[in-house]
Amino acid sequence: MQTSRLEAFSDGVLAIIITIMVLELQVPEHHTIAALWHEAGLSLLTYLLSFVYIGIYWNNHHHMFQLTERATGGILWANLHLLFWLSLYPFTTAWMDESHLARVPLTAYGVNLLGAAIAYVVLQTRILRAEGSDGPLRRALGRDLKGKISPFLYVAGIVAAALSGEDARGATIAALGFYVLVAVMWVIPDTRIERAIAGS
Amino acid sequence: MQTSRLEAFSDGVLAIIITIMVLELQVPEHHTIAALWHEAGLSLLTYLLSFVYIGIYWNNHHHMFQLTERATGGILWANLHLLFWLSLYPFTTAWMDESHLARVPLTAYGVNLLGAAIAYVVLQTRILRAEGSDGPLRRALGRDLKGKISPFLYVAGIVAAALSGEDARGATIAALGFYVLVAVMWVIPDTRIERAIAGS
Amino acid sequence: MQTSRLEAFSDGVLAIIITIMVLELQVPEHHTIAALWHEAGLSLLTYLLSFVYIGIYWNNHHHMFQLTERATGGILWANLHLLFWLSLYPFTTAWMDESHLARVPLTAYGVNLLGAAIAYVVLQTRILRAEGSDGPLRRALGRDLKGKISPFLYVAGIVAAALSGEDARGATIAALGFYVLVAVMWVIPDTRIERAIAGS
Amino acid sequence: MQTSRLEAFSDGVLAIIITIMVLELQVPEHHTIAALWHEAGLSLLTYLLSFVYIGIYWNNHHHMFQLTERATGGILWANLHLLFWLSLYPFTTAWMDESHLARVPLTAYGVNLLGAAIAYVVLQTRILRAEGSDGPLRRALGRDLKGKISPFLYVAGIVAAALSGEDARGATIAALGFYVLVAVMWVIPDTRIERAIAGS
Repeated sequence: MQTSRLEAFSDGVLAIIITIMVLELQVPEHHTIAALWHEAGLSLLTYLLSFVYIGIYWNNHHHMFQLTERATGGILWANLHLLFWLSLYPFTTAWMDESHLARVPLTAYGVNLLGAAIAYVVLQTRILRAEGSDGPLRRALGRDLKGKISPFLYVAGIVAAALSGEDARGATIAALGFYVLVAVMWVIPDTRIERAIAGS
Repeated sequence: MQTSRLEAFSDGVLAIIITIMVLELQVPEHHTIAALWHEAGLSLLTYLLSFVYIGIYWNNHHHMFQLTERATGGILWANLHLLFWLSLYPFTTAWMDESHLARVPLTAYGVNLLGAAIAYVVLQTRILRAEGSDGPLRRALGRDLKGKISPFLYVAGIVAAALSGEDARGATIAALGFYVLVAVMWVIPDTRIERAIAGS
Repeated sequence: MQTSRLEAFSDGVLAIIITIMVLELQVPEHHTIAALWHEAGLSLLTYLLSFVYIGIYWNNHHHMFQLTERATGGILWANLHLLFWLSLYPFTTAWMDESHLARVPLTAYGVNLLGAAIAYVVLQTRILRAEGSDGPLRRALGRDLKGKISPFLYVAGIVAAALSGEDARGATIAALGFYVLVAVMWVIPDTRIERAIAGS
Repeated sequence: MQTSRLEAFSDGVLAIIITIMVLELQVPEHHTIAALWHEAGLSLLTYLLSFVYIGIYWNNHHHMFQLTERATGGILWANLHLLFWLSLYPFTTAWMDESHLARVPLTAYGVNLLGAAIAYVVLQTRILRAEGSDGPLRRALGRDLKGKISPFLYVAGIVAAALSGEDARGATIAALGFYVLVAVMWVIPDTRIERAIAGS
């Protein structure tokens, strides 16, 4: 089975997820810059974060399937599993945002990020098994440092989120910091960060 | 007429159906794990069930059209008929969920599942007629045990749902059980379940 | 310029229009069959009508562009013009439905149908001009009886709608009848109805 | 890396943006032509304006990538950056419209238009750098007069918007005039306007 229709379907789902999140943005009731910031500022920033995350997944998904020749039934379902976790981003983003970064919603967002990351690893493993250990994807992944580090950063963010609260805003900022850090790490071109990590 | 644009359009519709259901998920008002469970737990589970169903239809649709060479006018309309039933999933899922699995909405959901299944059979029959009795789709379907059993399981679920109620929660669980059973049956790889059914 | 990306974009827009209309369906507050009928029955029927109309446009669009070789700038804009009219269907459908078929919304729906039909004719004319008078599309259209009759039926529906009202329910039914008639005329396979019309 | 999947994903996102804006249209509460005008007239006009803008971006995006052979990592992210700005159109359009063209939302809409224009230039520059100075895109762009004039017109619109207010409706009209002017300039076929501008 060829991968073209799987890619087209995934493109469609990712394009919709990345776009419908804008429907969760509440239009400010007042018409001042202050209102834009106070009523929609946090929404816009969390929207941006989730937008970048979906962009990263689309990017990596795109690269991975360029090096994948055939899709098995297991790969189709592993792909749908990944899309399910990603489809929850609008929900967890809205909850985190509407609660003004309260403890549980902030943690739930991190769990969602981690769930998607695990689903991605499961999909990648399925493909590697189908393609064989000397396939082009295997070689392209290299040591896959970013892929190996990300889950630990997500867990660090989840732990910080779980310790956060109204009297522990430092932990809130730390949690967000970890969530942003993973995104930044993936947006920066591969070669540079890999060398930086390898060099340290 | 080639099937490529029909497939692209169907992919688009299925991608949108599977994704917009997340817009029906109400963000919990409180910010606790208990609130997530009490206010959104049922929504998340019914969302998952409908997500899996749309995934199954996409999967089967994908396989069927890989073995279909040409699309007639009748096939185009049979395909739109199937998409219509599937497009009602967000509506019946939301009703079932908001009513906390009340009798009529639970039954309506089952009728929706059955309607889509019948529409799929109609589409498949149209294609088989156009492709001829010795075409590759005919051979690939084999005895099509799952396809033949599913309608009976849906009807069983509908009957259980119709008998359910606040003082008959057993029937509610039975109805859900049948709806989940069909989904599980299709997600499990074909060869294994077909052998299991054939062996019994 | 090739037409493939124009077709892909149009498929995407049509797939979204046909699907997001389901978001306008209000879930019934009560959980009875009577509530489903009284609170959502009209919505479901108008949704079905608009679904069929978008299906017809997708179908005809699909056929037309199979016989179109190149897209000019004018064709791109004529296509976007058509998509604009079609994108208003969810809006006019919801208004007609929420007003319980009041006079002005019922008329507005007809104007929307007519606007899309005119936009389709404009697009077709642009393509015919670009393709030349002996191109395959010119031959395939034949006398294009349905295309010529439809605008008159829409106008008849609009007139009936404009004359309708709470004390003139006959005109309401006549308007809906004309709107349904055009849809039915296009869904029935071409050859049969063309012969029927030609024979009368 | 080929550009086909980047184009498909962008088509998907643009198709969704252009269509979901219709969900922001509030159905008029009353059922008269006056209500349609007073309650939805401004919404319909701003929807039309944003629809045309997304159409222009799709059109230009389409042309640009027809002359682009390969997509680098930087091009992928520059493209996502453009899509992010465009995805905010439904939000800023709704705010401008619900505020009845108040000063800050009208200015915010202009900033959004300008942001997207700058993102487009960044994407174009990235592609030109990757394709080389004698590539087909370089030649097709020519002097790119429209591209060079547009930012100034947006800035003029933003300035007018910032000076507008309930007692300065002239500036409101001037701001809208600039926003409409850019759209009209891009919709009119290239050759004609370029000659007109070059001739003056």
